Amino acid sequence: MKAEGSKSKKNKIRLSNYLPFLDWLLNYHSQDLVGDIMAGVIVAIMLIPQAMAYALLAGLPPQVGLYASILPPIIYALLGTSKALAVGPVAMVSLLVATGVGQFAQPNTPQYVALALSLALLVGILQTFMGLVRLGFLVNFLSHAVISGFTSAAALVIGFSQFKHLLGVKIPQTESFYELLEAIIQRLLETNLVSLSIGLSCIAVLFYFNKPLGNLLKHRQIAPNLITPITRSGSLLVVLGSTLLVSGLNLEQIANIKIVGEIPAGLPPVTLPDFDLTIWKQLLPTALTISFVGFMESIAVAKSLASKRRQKIDANQELIGLGTANLGAAFTGGYPVTGGFSRSVVNSMAGANTGLASIITALLIGLVILFFTPLFYFLPKTTLAAIIMVAVFGLVDIDTFKQMWRYNKTDALSLLVTFFAVLTTGIETGILVGILTSLVLYLWRTSRPHMAVVGRVGDSEHFRNILRHDVKTYPHVMAIRVDESLYFVNTNYLEEHLIKVINEQSEIQHLVLICSGINFIDASALETLENLIEDLKESGISFYLAEVKGPVMDNLLKVGFIDKLGADHIFLSTHQVMQALGCS
Amino acid sequence: MKAEGSKSKKNKIRLSNYLPFLDWLLNYHSQDLVGDIMAGVIVAIMLIPQAMAYALLAGLPPQVGLYASILPPIIYALLGTSKALAVGPVAMVSLLVATGVGQFAQPNTPQYVALALSLALLVGILQTFMGLVRLGFLVNFLSHAVISGFTSAAALVIGFSQFKHLLGVKIPQTESFYELLEAIIQRLLETNLVSLSIGLSCIAVLFYFNKPLGNLLKHRQIAPNLITPITRSGSLLVVLGSTLLVSGLNLEQIANIKIVGEIPAGLPPVTLPDFDLTIWKQLLPTALTISFVGFMESIAVAKSLASKRRQKIDANQELIGLGTANLGAAFTGGYPVTGGFSRSVVNSMAGANTGLASIITALLIGLVILFFTPLFYFLPKTTLAAIIMVAVFGLVDIDTFKQMWRYNKTDALSLLVTFFAVLTTGIETGILVGILTSLVLYLWRTSRPHMAVVGRVGDSEHFRNILRHDVKTYPHVMAIRVDESLYFVNTNYLEEHLIKVINEQSEIQHLVLICSGINFIDASALETLENLIEDLKESGISFYLAEVKGPVMDNLLKVGFIDKLGADHIFLSTHQVMQALGCS
Repeated sequence: MKAEGSKSKKNKIRLSNYLPFLDWLLNYHSQDLVGDIMAGVIVAIMLIPQAMAYALLAGLPPQVGLYASILPPIIYALLGTSKALAVGPVAMVSLLVATGVGQFAQPNTPQYVALALSLALLVGILQTFMGLVRLGFLVNFLSHAVISGFTSAAALVIGFSQFKHLLGVKIPQTESFYELLEAIIQRLLETNLVSLSIGLSCIAVLFYFNKPLGNLLKHRQIAPNLITPITRSGSLLVVLGSTLLVSGLNLEQIANIKIVGEIPAGLPPVTLPDFDLTIWKQLLPTALTISFVGFMESIAVAKSLASKRRQKIDANQELIGLGTANLGAAFTGGYPVTGGFSRSVVNSMAGANTGLASIITALLIGLVILFFTPLFYFLPKTTLAAIIMVAVFGLVDIDTFKQMWRYNKTDALSLLVTFFAVLTTGIETGILVGILTSLVLYLWRTSRPHMAVVGRVGDSEHFRNILRHDVKTYPHVMAIRVDESLYFVNTNYLEEHLIKVINEQSEIQHLVLICSGINFIDASALETLENLIEDLKESGISFYLAEVKGPVMDNLLKVGFIDKLGADHIFLSTHQVMQALGCS
Repeated sequence: MKAEGSKSKKNKIRLSNYLPFLDWLLNYHSQDLVGDIMAGVIVAIMLIPQAMAYALLAGLPPQVGLYASILPPIIYALLGTSKALAVGPVAMVSLLVATGVGQFAQPNTPQYVALALSLALLVGILQTFMGLVRLGFLVNFLSHAVISGFTSAAALVIGFSQFKHLLGVKIPQTESFYELLEAIIQRLLETNLVSLSIGLSCIAVLFYFNKPLGNLLKHRQIAPNLITPITRSGSLLVVLGSTLLVSGLNLEQIANIKIVGEIPAGLPPVTLPDFDLTIWKQLLPTALTISFVGFMESIAVAKSLASKRRQKIDANQELIGLGTANLGAAFTGGYPVTGGFSRSVVNSMAGANTGLASIITALLIGLVILFFTPLFYFLPKTTLAAIIMVAVFGLVDIDTFKQMWRYNKTDALSLLVTFFAVLTTGIETGILVGILTSLVLYLWRTSRPHMAVVGRVGDSEHFRNILRHDVKTYPHVMAIRVDESLYFVNTNYLEEHLIKVINEQSEIQHLVLICSGINFIDASALETLENLIEDLKESGISFYLAEVKGPVMDNLLKVGFIDKLGADHIFLSTHQVMQALGCS
């Protein structure tokens, strides 16, 4: 009976691997409810203006952003593994939609909206597929350096792309950041000062809500669970304030302020994206980038939030969760979505315990779009631009660069290369350049391994680098430790270095290679080693191996290397080989 | 005075770094002369038919091959660092010329010959430039697996490309090996049986000279220094034999046997390659491939010959030597050259002690082209095809694959991928695919590092894998050795694995990370480690490092990691940390 019980428990665990919501739904605790409702409401307050702003950034009508905030987060709450991830429109993906779809249609046209739908469908298919065939590990090829450089550069591109709304001027979509800057400067004289004033005021208010207000409230000893809702309502406040101002003073007419205009009321329409292979082919590069970048942004924040609560994120199931959420977006008038960084952090901080929080957010957005869209008619676009700018400029991260520069110059270099590649060549090429750079730098680093000639520490059994420690050495024996796996990229360097150090020590009769840092030896390195041992033998120098790791030894045995070298030339420890060679 | 003397000696050494021939010319020993003459003559006997055959393979008139065998080896003898490398036309480079130039002109036309000259010029410029800016290390990115797969596939492509001459049929140049096979099979019925018979007889004779004759002569106790000249004159013999046969029986007329025809007598003309940027741009991809592949073939044999005689090869000076040799070819009616594999081995075996051997070969070829070209009028092309086929089919190397398969599956996989990529996509793309595959497989291997939980060996100070050795463990301490550097590609795996093993041992209070296999920790891994330590602390598990290598420790100190962890959590050896944690 006991065995059966444990088996059925195993089956249940397995089912919840595929339907993660079973985990929280079947074990829902009533004490989780307050946090979920609280977080759901706060995120909704944040999301309403953000969803419209990001749709604007993507070149889409504002309601599309709201549509994308309803079904997708509900689907993710059912199929994703993070309890606190807030899925919906985000800045980075919106920018990618703008540059990708912008190649084939004019923003705000029906064709453009249709292409955005197809893009969501493609992203959904790609991510779901990647999750099903277990490609989640691909995200491992993104180093923190590349992510940091990429995020900072994309934040700049996004932020500056909003200047046109802030200044109330027309600026065409550009791929390169420098062209964008140039276009902004050229049109500075055309600035609509009323638009700029409203925008800058919004930015000021948002900055005040971001940090100083929170500190003030803390200082005044306001209850902490009130502080978050208050500070997070900054964007809703600027939306309401600027809308009232524009409609009250009729600024649309007298100052030519661009407004959002009519947003159709009613729940998201059921939409059928185009199943047109020509279009799919055109959109594929953008869809691949969004699938990858969106996943990367999402998994990074999901992991960080989960590790704080000792929860587990499954990369492949995350892909399935995000992919199906995008499929949801494609069939309900939305556009590509992913887990947003700041929104998810707020969700978690505000107390989200389960996916129920996201579902509550989605229901609130549904209410807004059913009944409250007329409120946003006079909402000026400059306010939405201000919201985006404040959101993304905080992502420009100089500290990480400084820290990496101190710790490790090659990481800092990958970061810089990625940063400038994104600014000069655009987001898609930029991230590829960044990934390749970080991989090549890694290979370069392994191509010149650190090698240390070692000596005995006092009378102990330990051997350390003669350059770093006060150690005993022996003229007829050289013991050298190679701090790298041996493979084709570094075999030449290894050979040349060994020959060099041997030539410097004339009395040498025995060479001991300490393999504690060698995690594998590939076929190229093995051949080099065999030739070297042969050459040394002809020069009257015998060769020994010490501290060979198990997996390496297994392979060496298999090809008869050990037989050729002689089992009496292999020692478990450096101490043992040195004793055998009369160095005690 | 003594100091000055040593200074002038240093200067001389430095000068000979740039003009390597000073080394052998200024110290020429009379006892080296016999070997040099002997080798020079034998290589000339081999080279005369080969040079014409490879020109045929490249789609060029036979004299171009002879021209390319005069000035280039003389220049290399002066500027190259190998004493035994025989520079001249080789099969692989000839094939690359055929596929590269064949895109822009018809073989055997004046334009084709002019393009081949320009190609030699470009290769000369590229290689010399690469040598001057020290790019010789690039060859390190070619693993033995890739070289082996590449060589075998190229040998098949080259060998089968000669079937048209053997069969006496017309077959157009193809990029893909399978198209070539198809074309051969389609034309099998058109076979000229006389041509085929002559070709097969030549192949039989050449095979007999290659091995059985040598063994026979050895058996008959012929003096070894006679055996090499005899066995190496096989190709000259088939050339003379088949030429006599064709001219004697008038086979050109009655059996439609294709012959070499008139070869203009006289020394190589002084030629001026086109300095036309449009042409250069067209030829650049081929020139890059030849520069790289030619260098690779050459340096491989140069190194192997030099190591047997304890001589040193300098990769960058080699590039300069080969580059200037190609410039020489460009200005004397030749085409791209490099150091040939089999010819250099013969040169070395026949006793070449210095570059003088190559100079003697070149002078003999000069004599041939001045006085003996009429002899080759009736030389049938099927004979030259036979010479090429015997030369290259020996390069198809299955043993290396078998050995790699036993030793290391990923090396064997790179070999296979390169082999099939060259056959299906052609030489240039194929080698790129091979290089990328070997690098990606290496990265993949480092992405799932081997980690071993270790225990104490008896009462010693040594700790080994609990799965491989009979060791003592302690329930409250887990010591785990990670056998790989920590960097962004494997941080996720590391984190997940550590959490898994910790969860399996419930009584654990201390986690010791043994860093003997960690050669560096990049910024991504550092962040992961910091988060992990934080998480472990919250679970009541303290974290220790042991056997951290000097360079890694330096970096960790720089960013304050060690201060944060606490100096009392770092130990020189596993033994010490285990003692401190009460495990003795």
